[in-house]
Amino acid sequence: MTKRAPTIEALTALFGDRISTAAAIRDQHGHGESWHPTALPDAVFFALSEDEVARAVRICADHATPIVPFGAGTSVEGQVQAVNGGISIDVSRMKRIIAVRAEDMDCTVEPGVTRVELNDYIRDLGLFFPVDPAGEATFGGMASTRASGTNAVRYGTMKDMVLSLRAVLPDGSVLRTGQRAKKSSAGYDLTRLMIGAEGTLGIITELNLKLAGIPQQVSAATCSFPDLRSAVRTVVETLQCGVAMSRIEVADEVQVKAFNLYNKTSFPEQPMLFLEFAGNPKGVAAEIEIVHDLALGNGGGDFQWANTEEERRALWRARYSAVASNKMLKPGAMGMSTDVCVPISRLVECIEATKQDLLRSSLPAPLVGHVGDGNFHLYILFDPNDPAEMREAERISEELAERAIAMEGTCTGEHGIGLGKRKFMNRELGNPAIAAMRAIKAALDPQNIMNPGKMLP
Amino acid sequence: MTKRAPTIEALTALFGDRISTAAAIRDQHGHGESWHPTALPDAVFFALSEDEVARAVRICADHATPIVPFGAGTSVEGQVQAVNGGISIDVSRMKRIIAVRAEDMDCTVEPGVTRVELNDYIRDLGLFFPVDPAGEATFGGMASTRASGTNAVRYGTMKDMVLSLRAVLPDGSVLRTGQRAKKSSAGYDLTRLMIGAEGTLGIITELNLKLAGIPQQVSAATCSFPDLRSAVRTVVETLQCGVAMSRIEVADEVQVKAFNLYNKTSFPEQPMLFLEFAGNPKGVAAEIEIVHDLALGNGGGDFQWANTEEERRALWRARYSAVASNKMLKPGAMGMSTDVCVPISRLVECIEATKQDLLRSSLPAPLVGHVGDGNFHLYILFDPNDPAEMREAERISEELAERAIAMEGTCTGEHGIGLGKRKFMNRELGNPAIAAMRAIKAALDPQNIMNPGKMLP
Repeated sequence: MTKRAPTIEALTALFGDRISTAAAIRDQHGHGESWHPTALPDAVFFALSEDEVARAVRICADHATPIVPFGAGTSVEGQVQAVNGGISIDVSRMKRIIAVRAEDMDCTVEPGVTRVELNDYIRDLGLFFPVDPAGEATFGGMASTRASGTNAVRYGTMKDMVLSLRAVLPDGSVLRTGQRAKKSSAGYDLTRLMIGAEGTLGIITELNLKLAGIPQQVSAATCSFPDLRSAVRTVVETLQCGVAMSRIEVADEVQVKAFNLYNKTSFPEQPMLFLEFAGNPKGVAAEIEIVHDLALGNGGGDFQWANTEEERRALWRARYSAVASNKMLKPGAMGMSTDVCVPISRLVECIEATKQDLLRSSLPAPLVGHVGDGNFHLYILFDPNDPAEMREAERISEELAERAIAMEGTCTGEHGIGLGKRKFMNRELGNPAIAAMRAIKAALDPQNIMNPGKMLP
Repeated sequence: MTKRAPTIEALTALFGDRISTAAAIRDQHGHGESWHPTALPDAVFFALSEDEVARAVRICADHATPIVPFGAGTSVEGQVQAVNGGISIDVSRMKRIIAVRAEDMDCTVEPGVTRVELNDYIRDLGLFFPVDPAGEATFGGMASTRASGTNAVRYGTMKDMVLSLRAVLPDGSVLRTGQRAKKSSAGYDLTRLMIGAEGTLGIITELNLKLAGIPQQVSAATCSFPDLRSAVRTVVETLQCGVAMSRIEVADEVQVKAFNLYNKTSFPEQPMLFLEFAGNPKGVAAEIEIVHDLALGNGGGDFQWANTEEERRALWRARYSAVASNKMLKPGAMGMSTDVCVPISRLVECIEATKQDLLRSSLPAPLVGHVGDGNFHLYILFDPNDPAEMREAERISEELAERAIAMEGTCTGEHGIGLGKRKFMNRELGNPAIAAMRAIKAALDPQNIMNPGKMLP
């Protein structure tokens, strides 16, 4: 009989067997997709509607029981670990696509819908939702971590693609942050406050999302370079020419080797760019010419085109296979993903200093990145049973975060703070920002029941 | 000797004649550019640096004296009226352009810099800042009202173009909301919280702004239509075709008449679109063809091209002359500007219902709008000495706001709430949103000294 028994009893009385205390269910909800240790909730509640979420939150509030919002469990910084126990409120069964409005190029979805599900549903309308984190995340989770992905260089991040949302606040009231106008100056931007709040201010229960038109033509290619500097210079020059790339991604030679091992591809094992152009055919042709010239000028090889839709999908499947591919490099290893983002002018310097640091280390750490945004990831492979390797992975990760912050960048471009990055918050943002965040958290969640222990240092 | 005398004395001891209690100065700082009645501050402080702002705020905080941040005084919803008296802190002399980083396509400016000043300064670098409200506003003010303008359809609003900012909080501490990475998931989005806060949470003292590349080719044209519906349909269809217009603006026949009177132009006195295409020449040519076909299909006339840079400037000068032009329609009149924004699918219906309503009224009310965003303005002309006309103007404005809200839109797309739109906040956003805003305000400004009486109902 835990101290959460009264909460669980009250929830069970209302929701029956959609409250689970089964060990396997609690374990599955005690961790995301990362190296952070599991922390079990006392129970899991599978909610089916906003009203159910609100009723469950009110019960938890009555007993000051911690709540951890849960979607697909794909977060990588320990966002769903129930560090103080309590109730994991799983919204993954809230999967309704409530409305798609082609004329407005927007839609309304429940938080358990995933981007793949939505894109399958709207493809015939000539529309798509561009934000594409690697995991099969839910929209609730993507919004909560301010996620992005390969399309952010053109379409922005979740911050840019959510029109407004609904959320259950810590007192059980239901917040509506706005309506569906493309822009509004009506009061504090509560939409953006909830996006990236990692479930510490409430549980997102509905989202109005912007959609984008599927471009007339999409052309994708890869291009190899003699060194990382040349590849990244090409990206910087492309952006400066005003070319609106739809995707521009880098992989270092270690990452390319992993891609080849896993996908049986035969990319030259040297740094490469994944490129995608999109728009009307004449505009795309002109842009390809510009970028091709820039790549050549930086010593890049010929563009290898994905000519058919099938080849293009295969190309991006390879890029998306980074995590799975990387595990081929060190069987049995666990991965620690870094997520720095720096101003473009510092990107070459940041990457080169990082590669220098890696020369000192025995751990493989492939590098892949959304370089159009200045954002790149190392996936540091370490043996979870070897404390020295784990410490070494942490050292690399921490030094990289500090390096990015010193270059006016951030320790996290798209993964969020969770448990893993709390120690960098003060350094990156300063004490007044942390004090303001604490004041906002205390004002909206005075009992500190919403995902306690996360984000704030 | 007012009750603010101790504050004014303490400020004068520090800042000498940069504290003014002169009647003309106070009057100039007691109103923006709108019909809202003047409300005088007790004194005006012309700050020269962030440190001075912080010291002044600490003095005001010690005496619980209200503070009203002031830039160019171009706001239109009563944002700068000192309704509780106190100190107007004028940052318009904080005019340093601290850094322009062409490679990062960003810059750092003080809050008193205006967009025209910045654009003059960076033009030779091939860069520009796209957000363009009609007034010669400062960046501090533009951020504080979440301003937009004619380029928002392509580049977004201040919410999208500010990377991060610094602000003096109500306790005199200096908040830094982030660094210069293009994206970050580090904690609550304090940048977006300060943008649109209308000076109620702090005084913005520095901004990191994104810049855009000046496109290779820019082509502008006008096109007349038999009725508003046809013009707006053309806009909706253009957006649906994924054409990335750089500007697409509508004016109704009343507005066109005013343009002609003021600018000595000879636009046909029927609804018209102002169009601007931008990008690489081949892409632009393809887009022009698409939009031209759509316009023809909706009964539009031939495109009238602004062929030279000079003609293009003249075209946009005409569009920007709306407020000055409108005064020609009713000499001696004052204008009440509305600012609704609705989902594109409701735009025709919203505009037609509004035009129907105007048929009942004797007041001229030209219509102009950023229709690519679903945002349009009436400029309702009334005699300020005739209470019946003023009431009639308010009736039109209020019914329009209610109509937009009922269509899932907003009462303000870009002007902000200030004093004028407070009454619509509850209806548009609901009580939990207002309660959350109040809680945030109380948490960050417990003495309620930052621009009190504004925004919240």
